[in-house]
Amino acid sequence: MDHKTDNTVSKEVSYEQAEGYRYVEGGVCAAKGYRANGLNCGLNPVKEKNDLALLVSETPARAAAVYTTNKVKGAPILVCREHLERTGNTARAVIVNSKNANTCNADGVEKAERMCSLAANALGIAPEEVLVASTGVIGEILPIEPIESHMEKLAEGLSVSGNLEAAKAIMTTDTVKKEAAVEFELDGRLCRVGGMAKGSGMICPNMATTLNFITTDCLITAEMLQQALSEIVRVTYNCLSVDGDTSTNDMVLLLAGGAAGNEEIAEDGEAYQKFRTALYLVMLHLTKMLAKDGEGATKLLECRVSGAPDEECARIVAKSVISSPLLKCAVFGEDANWGRVLCAIGYAEADFEIGRVGVFLSGKNGSVEVCRDGAGVPFSEAAAKEVLSGDEVTILVDLGQGEAQARAFGCDLTYDYVRINGDYRS
Amino acid sequence: MDHKTDNTVSKEVSYEQAEGYRYVEGGVCAAKGYRANGLNCGLNPVKEKNDLALLVSETPARAAAVYTTNKVKGAPILVCREHLERTGNTARAVIVNSKNANTCNADGVEKAERMCSLAANALGIAPEEVLVASTGVIGEILPIEPIESHMEKLAEGLSVSGNLEAAKAIMTTDTVKKEAAVEFELDGRLCRVGGMAKGSGMICPNMATTLNFITTDCLITAEMLQQALSEIVRVTYNCLSVDGDTSTNDMVLLLAGGAAGNEEIAEDGEAYQKFRTALYLVMLHLTKMLAKDGEGATKLLECRVSGAPDEECARIVAKSVISSPLLKCAVFGEDANWGRVLCAIGYAEADFEIGRVGVFLSGKNGSVEVCRDGAGVPFSEAAAKEVLSGDEVTILVDLGQGEAQARAFGCDLTYDYVRINGDYRS
Repeated sequence: MDHKTDNTVSKEVSYEQAEGYRYVEGGVCAAKGYRANGLNCGLNPVKEKNDLALLVSETPARAAAVYTTNKVKGAPILVCREHLERTGNTARAVIVNSKNANTCNADGVEKAERMCSLAANALGIAPEEVLVASTGVIGEILPIEPIESHMEKLAEGLSVSGNLEAAKAIMTTDTVKKEAAVEFELDGRLCRVGGMAKGSGMICPNMATTLNFITTDCLITAEMLQQALSEIVRVTYNCLSVDGDTSTNDMVLLLAGGAAGNEEIAEDGEAYQKFRTALYLVMLHLTKMLAKDGEGATKLLECRVSGAPDEECARIVAKSVISSPLLKCAVFGEDANWGRVLCAIGYAEADFEIGRVGVFLSGKNGSVEVCRDGAGVPFSEAAAKEVLSGDEVTILVDLGQGEAQARAFGCDLTYDYVRINGDYRS
Repeated sequence: MDHKTDNTVSKEVSYEQAEGYRYVEGGVCAAKGYRANGLNCGLNPVKEKNDLALLVSETPARAAAVYTTNKVKGAPILVCREHLERTGNTARAVIVNSKNANTCNADGVEKAERMCSLAANALGIAPEEVLVASTGVIGEILPIEPIESHMEKLAEGLSVSGNLEAAKAIMTTDTVKKEAAVEFELDGRLCRVGGMAKGSGMICPNMATTLNFITTDCLITAEMLQQALSEIVRVTYNCLSVDGDTSTNDMVLLLAGGAAGNEEIAEDGEAYQKFRTALYLVMLHLTKMLAKDGEGATKLLECRVSGAPDEECARIVAKSVISSPLLKCAVFGEDANWGRVLCAIGYAEADFEIGRVGVFLSGKNGSVEVCRDGAGVPFSEAAAKEVLSGDEVTILVDLGQGEAQARAFGCDLTYDYVRINGDYRS
């Protein structure tokens, strides 16, 4: 096997279609009423890369949030929580830096509050209307001077096409920027949901993964907004694992400014379901982008489990499969070592009968059955190799004991993951 | 960072001392009453390596066993369970092959039974007195002919110095054979406990890890033997992780032939505790050998947690730390990225207060404090690098909220892990 270290692998992710929804450009500025910007303020002295982003809503937006379940919580998370409590879940702006996680240090909360004040001053709003996020190395003091000295310029440069610079500014080891947006109709009005995400390593199920900022112009109550976010996080980001490491700074922020002019969504119903589907499509696409750009990854690895007794069981099995380091290495090596799939299904902590399990390896080039009723079936190694050679590999698992299904997303484990994380900090 | 692919890294593991115990040679034949042998029967047509091992007790030995918790259980495990049930937990012999796990195939149980019958015939004992184990690729049919045609020769070659050939025969991707034995006194009689193990990948806490065969000449009841094994597995193999993948064929078999002539150990007491300590030392050493020879590993990684509210909490935290892929990569890169230690402590699923945690990096070259009360402290990068450059790195974690402690064992994550598992099967 070659030692593949080139970066020529495709990071493009195929879009999933749903009737009545159309993918559009614009990321976090796709929805009406948002401006953004990003620039290099110099937090990384040796790298000319955007490291500071600002996202602003024209009007006070309803806000929903999901945070990491790690006991170590970044200072920005503590500040976001407090601000949303004080404002009753509304927000006007989000300030984000990369390169330094502002976590496990002496003055994290003070610095996070200071970032909010600086942004508030530049925008002429109250500090508690600003949310804050940081990503990067844990345990170092965040230098505030670069942020302070660039805030004016950052605010002045805000625009409805600033989504790209903002998306670049939140990247760390990401190799591609991650944006997605869809439009759909509600009450005859055009509505949009769009977002940006960052994340490549320290990504694991069981929480709100990485940094994700999503905006919509839909009018929706804060309660229904939070409900939609929590529901969709469960089936998207929480079904994602690059390395099993749950970050300290993960958060998803969802802002709803209401400029679309639809009737306010205040309960579960057709309008809510339409909005929920839009949110799902955006977050699903960002999830797949995060998986495919996992540190060192050359392939998107998906597991679809069907025939499960319940959805939770399906999800646990799907996550177990895409998390197996052995399987991830085999996918990198394009080796149809399906025994490792069975092994990972077998140690999944869920209640089901192993003897009825069937497995197909699937990709853009077709599908190959490798296991039926828990035992191997003869298959063409050449055909399996062909399937595994694509840049998106799907493991189809049928548990054969129910109707429930779930999907989970990850990537292969490669030399570059080791290289990136052997010398990330230094 | 260099791409280290040489195999010049030390695989020697430092011995832990306990008064009254002395490490001896002889592995699984160290205790009186055992003979072993290993040879190449040709299960791997392209590799001249022992692949078949036989271990025999002169007298019917009391037997204790612990098996994998994976739902997919190798056929040999099913057969061992049944044989031990039929014999009331006694055994005379163990037959083991590598290269093929005899799992997830059509005729696994039949083949495993056949291996027992073949060994029983050659030894002139009953098939149910033979235990069986297999390790290697999952999901392929086990060819019985090579085993059948070599059984006579294998049995004829049995000797009290055959432990080495046997230890070689159970290796798969292992780069060193794994044996350990200690002697101690009981009732004025010299007693010994010795064992051999195999395992390098697909190794994870939460079960009986890998294949491990341990023998003793102590006289002890089957009940106390099983109790000792279960207790010691909990603090040794179950605190080991190479990659988080729980194998389908893991088992630990412990045989007690009784040739030492001590008074039978039938209850907890001084004699039981002495035996238990011997078993602990052997299994601890084998555990550390397994960790240090983790696939691709260049360093043994240990985490010692103290100051925990209870032992279970300490163990969960210790395992979380040594399982973090990000930390494992940082240790490989000799980068003192202690934030990843805090992160892994933070997502450990146990109940404790994160704000009191202290962390030292420790090794043969000294110790460096990197974190106090959950926040970073200034430390010398040069001194930390010096600590991490050794081939045994210990992360000392003090939770500062109790008296309980635990240890867990793993290894660094390297390019070679990816290489080995990208093309293992083919």
